[in-house]
Amino acid sequence: MKTVLVVGAGAIGTFYGAKLAQAGAEVTLVCRSDYEAVRTGGVEIDSVWGSFHFTPAGVMHSVAEYGRAADLILVATKVLPEIDTAAMIRPAAGPGSGVLLLQNGIGIEAPVAAGLPGVEILSGLAFACIWRAAPGRIVHQDYGRLALGCYPSGISPKLKELAGMLEKAGVPVTLTDAVQRDRWRKLVWNAPFNPLSVLGGGITTREILSDPEGTALSRAVMEEVVALAAADGWPLPPEVVQKNLDDTLNMTPYKTSMCLDFEHGRPLEVEAILGNAVRAGRRLGVRTPHLDSLYAALRLVDAKLRGRA
Amino acid sequence: MKTVLVVGAGAIGTFYGAKLAQAGAEVTLVCRSDYEAVRTGGVEIDSVWGSFHFTPAGVMHSVAEYGRAADLILVATKVLPEIDTAAMIRPAAGPGSGVLLLQNGIGIEAPVAAGLPGVEILSGLAFACIWRAAPGRIVHQDYGRLALGCYPSGISPKLKELAGMLEKAGVPVTLTDAVQRDRWRKLVWNAPFNPLSVLGGGITTREILSDPEGTALSRAVMEEVVALAAADGWPLPPEVVQKNLDDTLNMTPYKTSMCLDFEHGRPLEVEAILGNAVRAGRRLGVRTPHLDSLYAALRLVDAKLRGRA
Repeated sequence: MKTVLVVGAGAIGTFYGAKLAQAGAEVTLVCRSDYEAVRTGGVEIDSVWGSFHFTPAGVMHSVAEYGRAADLILVATKVLPEIDTAAMIRPAAGPGSGVLLLQNGIGIEAPVAAGLPGVEILSGLAFACIWRAAPGRIVHQDYGRLALGCYPSGISPKLKELAGMLEKAGVPVTLTDAVQRDRWRKLVWNAPFNPLSVLGGGITTREILSDPEGTALSRAVMEEVVALAAADGWPLPPEVVQKNLDDTLNMTPYKTSMCLDFEHGRPLEVEAILGNAVRAGRRLGVRTPHLDSLYAALRLVDAKLRGRA
Repeated sequence: MKTVLVVGAGAIGTFYGAKLAQAGAEVTLVCRSDYEAVRTGGVEIDSVWGSFHFTPAGVMHSVAEYGRAADLILVATKVLPEIDTAAMIRPAAGPGSGVLLLQNGIGIEAPVAAGLPGVEILSGLAFACIWRAAPGRIVHQDYGRLALGCYPSGISPKLKELAGMLEKAGVPVTLTDAVQRDRWRKLVWNAPFNPLSVLGGGITTREILSDPEGTALSRAVMEEVVALAAADGWPLPPEVVQKNLDDTLNMTPYKTSMCLDFEHGRPLEVEAILGNAVRAGRRLGVRTPHLDSLYAALRLVDAKLRGRA
């Protein structure tokens, strides 16, 4: 795995791209807003694991500009209905390429796999507190573990090679042969806290849980996600709900990624995080009235943000 | 019914107080923010029924200042947990007084009745498009009907006298011996549209219903309110849900009163409109997951508005 193309070089994509470069890969970034800054000065990575400067092998405006197949395409864009990921990365996806979807949400791999037959799809979740402080400057404040698996399931040689490189660069990796279960498990947290942080007008996890009704609704939504996961064939341990609530109460008040998108007036990952879960429920015959309510309300916020309403 | 004291002289209270003055009553206003303007210049009423100037018999800062019992105390404040209505109006409530609660929400009469034993409690709903354009200037743009009944039920001589005076001044009045049913029926509309207009970030009824998920959630909330009303002993005709949706789609896009409060950073009537309904469900054993979700989310908005969060 010599060549890596990072598509969606925000904080997460750039950070893990930079770690793969530290492990010896030739890493190219596809940038939009920060193109000039990164092309000129590279990226300053302020990391609790040790800060360093990252000079990408290339900085491009588009995937087509790359002009060849990459061994690994690391996709870290937001998951939005208007982005056709398969079409976007196809120019760099050859028969030997792997695609790592390091993105939020549930059920996000299927459209990419369908659009890129014969290309190996890896799926990953980042448990990390990493943000872009300025053009060309990424801050890694805490955590940083990746959970990685093959889509739809299993652990392949390519995945093991990728994990080995990440670990060489100091990234803790959990390999999973059931990454869908890990996605459902992460959704247990995302499904209440992402929408409520936005619907509350831009508030932290602490503010959500400081209200007994906020806690009760968070719990009800989590229980619906656990029921969805089980109906989808990925049962989660029942204590996951209480553990998520306890851990969130005990952690530093946190603004979700969706809350930050909201505060910056950017489109929200409503469909990837909530819509796909709601649709899974409709398909599987699981009633999810609390999730449905947050989904509908959040669509209205998103429509207003996009000026579509 | 010679003397009327209006408490909460916002748009609704001032308008109907002015109509009672037209019918011959001696009407005094308790004002907060607009005290100076109203005391100096009275109130200009711009009404589709014919504009007129209203000079109150008195303008006061507080009920205590009134110094006697009123024949009728017209209460048109917002219903907020921090307002103890019974304590507020007690100085003007004598044995022969009647109290008209012209306010939003469900279950709002019981605490007032409990705090003023022996005082006759009337309950009313305004179906009107009336707002305060400036200090001392009220605009009545459309509609204007009142539904009035005795609390907890029935039609008394005092209520008939009040209705007669309002009708004399040109106000259409519907007398009801089951005003609780009318409150539930109005809540069918308020329960979805008030919170969603706020949670969507300040949007109209048209924007809510332009999204199929927004329509589906509005319908689900309405059906929960119909179930609550039935369990509370006030069954509504089943077609009320579809009729509310159809009528709302056909009317001019409308910003709810709660949306206007939100946009002005004022406290929201969360408990009167949603909290009391949710609590009725818990008491009556009716599950209301959609209503619960909107209630919890709206409490978070209200806490943020109040700077309590």
